[in-house]
Amino acid sequence: MKRFQVITLFPEMFSGVFGSSMMWKAQNGEYVELTTINLRDYGLGPRRQVDDTPYGGGDGMLLKPEPLFAAVEHAKTIDPTAKVLLMTPRGVRWKQSLAQQYADASNGYIFICGRYEGYDERIVSVVDESISVGDYVLTGGELPAMTIVDSIVRLIPGVLGGEASAAIESFSDDETLEYPQYTRPEEFRGMKVPSVLLSGHHAEIAKWREQQSQTKTS
Amino acid sequence: MKRFQVITLFPEMFSGVFGSSMMWKAQNGEYVELTTINLRDYGLGPRRQVDDTPYGGGDGMLLKPEPLFAAVEHAKTIDPTAKVLLMTPRGVRWKQSLAQQYADASNGYIFICGRYEGYDERIVSVVDESISVGDYVLTGGELPAMTIVDSIVRLIPGVLGGEASAAIESFSDDETLEYPQYTRPEEFRGMKVPSVLLSGHHAEIAKWREQQSQTKTS
Repeated sequence: MKRFQVITLFPEMFSGVFGSSMMWKAQNGEYVELTTINLRDYGLGPRRQVDDTPYGGGDGMLLKPEPLFAAVEHAKTIDPTAKVLLMTPRGVRWKQSLAQQYADASNGYIFICGRYEGYDERIVSVVDESISVGDYVLTGGELPAMTIVDSIVRLIPGVLGGEASAAIESFSDDETLEYPQYTRPEEFRGMKVPSVLLSGHHAEIAKWREQQSQTKTS
Repeated sequence: MKRFQVITLFPEMFSGVFGSSMMWKAQNGEYVELTTINLRDYGLGPRRQVDDTPYGGGDGMLLKPEPLFAAVEHAKTIDPTAKVLLMTPRGVRWKQSLAQQYADASNGYIFICGRYEGYDERIVSVVDESISVGDYVLTGGELPAMTIVDSIVRLIPGVLGGEASAAIESFSDDETLEYPQYTRPEEFRGMKVPSVLLSGHHAEIAKWREQQSQTKTS
């Protein structure tokens, strides 16, 4: 069973996502264990301080090193071989082939969710991989962590019903996008299903779908 | 007040994310309204059917057109000028300049969350923009919708405390990544804060930060 531990100041953000749909099924089927660690529990002093002002000036507060290191060390006691992943726009760009590689690996993962103001750079010394989900800024690393967990968990054998689904879908080769699909009714508000799909000619259907698959150009 | 309506089969996934941190504050401050529309409510027949098998064969179930169209039409009665956004890996790649453009616009947004098996392509006829958050496959459009909402809402004037933060941060020009930051203590486990940041020389600090900012090459 693969373990995903997420270090965050907002564990309540995860309950809906980890408790629904595919991720709920994956836990229920004991394919994965998804847990959160509240960084606040590792805060300093009676006020459980987790952040402080940046050296050299600047807006906002940064996550302090002490609570982050302590939370990572706690997670490591639970799963000593887990890889530590830092969610940051400065990281490597997440893509489908990485999701497959992470799903295939035998180790678990510890996610560190920064907040938008930032984190003390020294945390990078305990990080195995810094990861970015895209070229946009988010309030924190929580949505990126959920995104990466989702993309990995669904590739773990047994989690999805039809194993074939994951293999033929978009980006299985990092480049190809799936063809358009249609279901009943045959005609809806004047829009008809392409006739080839109703033909029953498997070879022609396959050819049409291949033509309709897009290859990414950007 | 900007309105974001999300059409989904899993509204419970959104409660933690919409109810915490920046997104909670943005709603509480009446900058935005974030609501979900349960696609199941527009399902057909006594079993509230929302999906069906694909024409031409293939794995999985596709979202049927009738419930999707009905849900979008309901959302439009609430916010007639809202733009309809479809979350799909076949869409345009989301980036920070789009988040800014969407935050600056006066209209609201209606998000359609597909499930991984797919949707009937005819829904595209009512979609203003198809959007992808990155080259990876997720179980549904819910995490992409949350991601896009987060990236837009935080740019709405007044939502973040320090207006300056959003302007100097990563990707404000789609290319530049923020410099490393440090906070107390000065030394932690033998790792020291770069001395320039402790110097008090504002010009040198600015120069160091500029040198440390990365320009994306990929």
